Amino acid sequence: MNPTQIVEKMMQHDAFSQWLGIRVLEAGAGKSVLEMEIRPEMLNGFGIAHGAITYALADSALAFAANGHGRHSVSVDTSIHHLEPLKPGDIIRALAREDALKNRFGFYSIDIFKSETLVAQFRGTVYRTEKNWE
Amino acid sequence: MNPTQIVEKMMQHDAFSQWLGIRVLEAGAGKSVLEMEIRPEMLNGFGIAHGAITYALADSALAFAANGHGRHSVSVDTSIHHLEPLKPGDIIRALAREDALKNRFGFYSIDIFKSETLVAQFRGTVYRTEKNWE
Amino acid sequence: MNPTQIVEKMMQHDAFSQWLGIRVLEAGAGKSVLEMEIRPEMLNGFGIAHGAITYALADSALAFAANGHGRHSVSVDTSIHHLEPLKPGDIIRALAREDALKNRFGFYSIDIFKSETLVAQFRGTVYRTEKNWE
Amino acid sequence: MNPTQIVEKMMQHDAFSQWLGIRVLEAGAGKSVLEMEIRPEMLNGFGIAHGAITYALADSALAFAANGHGRHSVSVDTSIHHLEPLKPGDIIRALAREDALKNRFGFYSIDIFKSETLVAQFRGTVYRTEKNWE
Repeated sequence: MNPTQIVEKMMQHDAFSQWLGIRVLEAGAGKSVLEMEIRPEMLNGFGIAHGAITYALADSALAFAANGHGRHSVSVDTSIHHLEPLKPGDIIRALAREDALKNRFGFYSIDIFKSETLVAQFRGTVYRTEKNWE
Repeated sequence: MNPTQIVEKMMQHDAFSQWLGIRVLEAGAGKSVLEMEIRPEMLNGFGIAHGAITYALADSALAFAANGHGRHSVSVDTSIHHLEPLKPGDIIRALAREDALKNRFGFYSIDIFKSETLVAQFRGTVYRTEKNWE
Repeated sequence: MNPTQIVEKMMQHDAFSQWLGIRVLEAGAGKSVLEMEIRPEMLNGFGIAHGAITYALADSALAFAANGHGRHSVSVDTSIHHLEPLKPGDIIRALAREDALKNRFGFYSIDIFKSETLVAQFRGTVYRTEKNWE
Repeated sequence: MNPTQIVEKMMQHDAFSQWLGIRVLEAGAGKSVLEMEIRPEMLNGFGIAHGAITYALADSALAFAANGHGRHSVSVDTSIHHLEPLKPGDIIRALAREDALKNRFGFYSIDIFKSETLVAQFRGTVYRTEKNWE
């Protein structure tokens, strides 16, 4: 399967990414670009997007980029910091890039933007299993 | 306001924690215990809970524990690793403990359990603003 | 080889841990306790111990605890935050505990204390290779 | 004081960076480039550079980049992963870039290279105090 087919298959059964309204703008081996819109049901007690919303978009971007190589890949460690508050109607975009690819591991940085403004930064390490997507 | 009142006020307007079905079992200055159930709409493409679900529970536990001291506190850096897959019907519980409290910063570890099994570990640093809950 | 033999073999060739003056107080499968003293040549431009000194002690504690199981284990991701400044003559102690052990991965928390005071917190994930210590 | 003067002042009293043999190739507001050579006394029990050596170079690069703005800045959270083993004689170079600068916080990514090869990635958050370098 090619990266686009893999991401389609992953998205097809990904109920939470569907609830989030994630749109896949680009999918490749080691990269992905995703987009979504902040909705009222995603807010926390401060009236801004819950930190888990940007985490979710970044974590999905990580999964799509890593699995795009054709091997089942699972996250090992992830971290995120949030730089800007997000409000309903804001469109955010995640850009996943591969920093290093080893036999067993892949290392990724995912930046999240609202227009040109960096709103969150995520880093993730994945373990690459021996099982292929088919 | 006491910790219980603060958490009630935070939860009252926290649409996403409500969607998650988070129940506050304990709230205090520097600690919190939260619980929720995994539902089908929280699953990812592998048929297990999306990583953002456990992140969300832990991040809410962090916010409640840190704000329980009475000062508005915002997260600076967070990290999580996932140890066990979660399925619909699983009940997970987050226990937030304060590792260190400084004038400007608070440091927290949040362990997430399914029954007695550790399923995820989260660590978060918060910045303590000068604004009080009232 | 048992945990004590493994740590002895690792320490024997560990020039940097020797420069640091690390003493192994306890070594076991999944745990370790190390101690060292801050010296003037370990200070940074602020007159306190460079952050890499506590990192070094914690990273060694991680390596000893993880390799104590008998399989060559290498760190994948590590993080640390520093809570208290350290001065020459301070004795610091690292306590490594295993949070979870899987077939391929081990997850560890290392707390560093000066007497009873927590001065730094470290978390590390290791990959467990198939090569045994012998 | 300008960035170069600040870094000179920091380096002048930084005994550990001197032990490491760190050379400052570039110093600016929010950026820095440092270089050093791996020596035998920096090795761990596997015959490769101890993880704390690359951490040290990156942490110094963080401190120089952040303090280059003229305000005393201290690290809050740091993380690193190591991608390639390093041997005596290897020259490594740290490039610190500022991802975001806020009133109270600065966020930095430090990549470490051996020639063109990425050997470690570090991320650090600093708290910007109100005290100026003078």
